[in-house]
Amino acid sequence: MSNRRYHWKRLEQFVAQVFQRSGLPPEEASVVSESLIEADLRGVDSHGVVRTEIYVQRLEKGMVASGASMQVMQDGGLTLLDAQNSFGAVAGNRALELALTGARQHGLSIVGVKNSNHFGTCAYYLKKAVEQDMLLMVMSNASQTMPPTGGIRPFIGTNPLAVGVPAGRHLPFMMDMATSVVARGKIIVAAEKGEAIPEGWAVDAQGRPTTDAQEALSGSVLPLGGPKGYALSMFIDIMAGVLTGAGFGKSVNNMYENWAQPQNVGHFFIAMDIGRMMPVAQFKQRMDEYIEDLKAEPKAPGVNEILIPGELEFRREQERKQQGIELPLKVQQMLSSLGERHGLSLTDTEIDESAVYE
Amino acid sequence: MSNRRYHWKRLEQFVAQVFQRSGLPPEEASVVSESLIEADLRGVDSHGVVRTEIYVQRLEKGMVASGASMQVMQDGGLTLLDAQNSFGAVAGNRALELALTGARQHGLSIVGVKNSNHFGTCAYYLKKAVEQDMLLMVMSNASQTMPPTGGIRPFIGTNPLAVGVPAGRHLPFMMDMATSVVARGKIIVAAEKGEAIPEGWAVDAQGRPTTDAQEALSGSVLPLGGPKGYALSMFIDIMAGVLTGAGFGKSVNNMYENWAQPQNVGHFFIAMDIGRMMPVAQFKQRMDEYIEDLKAEPKAPGVNEILIPGELEFRREQERKQQGIELPLKVQQMLSSLGERHGLSLTDTEIDESAVYE
Repeated sequence: MSNRRYHWKRLEQFVAQVFQRSGLPPEEASVVSESLIEADLRGVDSHGVVRTEIYVQRLEKGMVASGASMQVMQDGGLTLLDAQNSFGAVAGNRALELALTGARQHGLSIVGVKNSNHFGTCAYYLKKAVEQDMLLMVMSNASQTMPPTGGIRPFIGTNPLAVGVPAGRHLPFMMDMATSVVARGKIIVAAEKGEAIPEGWAVDAQGRPTTDAQEALSGSVLPLGGPKGYALSMFIDIMAGVLTGAGFGKSVNNMYENWAQPQNVGHFFIAMDIGRMMPVAQFKQRMDEYIEDLKAEPKAPGVNEILIPGELEFRREQERKQQGIELPLKVQQMLSSLGERHGLSLTDTEIDESAVYE
Repeated sequence: MSNRRYHWKRLEQFVAQVFQRSGLPPEEASVVSESLIEADLRGVDSHGVVRTEIYVQRLEKGMVASGASMQVMQDGGLTLLDAQNSFGAVAGNRALELALTGARQHGLSIVGVKNSNHFGTCAYYLKKAVEQDMLLMVMSNASQTMPPTGGIRPFIGTNPLAVGVPAGRHLPFMMDMATSVVARGKIIVAAEKGEAIPEGWAVDAQGRPTTDAQEALSGSVLPLGGPKGYALSMFIDIMAGVLTGAGFGKSVNNMYENWAQPQNVGHFFIAMDIGRMMPVAQFKQRMDEYIEDLKAEPKAPGVNEILIPGELEFRREQERKQQGIELPLKVQQMLSSLGERHGLSLTDTEIDESAVYE
């Protein structure tokens, strides 16, 4: 068994089936699976089907609720959603719907979410919003991974900030970033290869700067740009956590380590109906002009093209939809074994090599 | 004449008088001066009274309007403010009032501003919002200073992102950051001292990485964290520029270099009435808990205290209100000469050394 390639839609159905047979209602299983596959398609493998196992374990151990009745409280354009410990993608998807409906009605809306869980890649929500000509900001807090400036151990999360904005002829602007210097996943890869990491990525368990990937893994990832990343991460924690009633700081639980309590993650969505500020066609024309100006800029040696945020991921998605999603051996084995427990065959989702390059 | 210290309130009145006698209505002169002094008090000297001369020059050359009738268009919680080329602080202050009124009425409001100018330090607006228990986000675009990822010359601005959130017993959270690695001012200081700058701060005029401060000044400052800072800066340009009808990208004019056209800067304010999401007292108690947890974290060697964003600047403000604002010789000379033209004495604003430590 080497790295094999899987058909994105068949893989999505396989993962949805795994969730369903593990006890999730069909509509929730579909949403969670769709969110994971979207991450894999975009090349954000850390948020893809690699999470299937931990999600199933959280569900089976009763750490995540299945088919919960989420509660909605609304006051004009402001909504508070109590996710009742549903899967993060299920809560996020509901929050997105509420945010878009609110923006259509009021021009502008926010949805705060409490009692949620890890909600996957933010781009999953952005994509749905920009398809409807909406402008969307998404934030989520996360369990502790980075020290504050001056600290030595993880306290704040790599809380992501994401923004989606539609354009006209061009691809939408899709920013989806963690507030750390780099994804922890890159340090894991370096450690596996026995390679050093650049200075400034991480500190060791005593809070000392390190270029040793192993030491870094037992220490902390550093915030983007030092105090700026610390401030951004704290800002997101305030919006998604303090303001919504969710956990914040040390009260957001780690899904890999804490098997006694739900995560209590919080999310924060801001949606805006562009047409209420400017005719949508005019706005899109201005976005196109911006993007064309950027792309016409002189390029650094070795650079063929200036990309806008999200463009690389969009291309990967096209490519992977065509050629399949390649999964490392470990992930294949994990999915295969989850499938076997429920009479599902991962092999059926593989890409037929001979058919691909026809 | 060495570095001397000036009484903040007397200096504020002096600068307001300079603007007034240069043709600005009293209320506009007060707002612009107040914004500059606030920056000096907080230690953000680059946005302080050092700007008095360029502001007066823009006014005198007709590049900024005096006493313009700003136009307001409103649709529920969404407001578009046409600043009619007023000073940025005047437009920003009006936008703040509209945003806070809108948030009180609708729970949530946004104000987009077009046809504006450099609006000083964002913290000036945050401070007024948090005093009223409001949560405020402020963004502004700016003229070209940073290359996009893959580019070699300035295209995007160091567009600031700022967020203010009130706490209870503790100081408010006040994040006010440019989207560059460092302020260009730090490179100017290094160049004046003949010192090298760290790798990663800037590129030279050909877009090559440089540690030579002089080369950096003829090149570009780099975005915070590479592609992440590029995305953040572009996001702000979209909100403040593309969406409001202001300039964006290369159509935001440089106030030092372009004497043929107004700047056409855009700003974007989002205000939220905290009490519509959670009782304010409960929210503040949660903020206090967060801040206390952060401060209780173990500290890196040599660190006495973990600070929250804005805390350092708050302490400087207390100190400078007590001990005066120290101005470098160049700035003294500039202000002194502006004063002389209008029969105003800078000397009268100096701190009486013997009185300070009583």
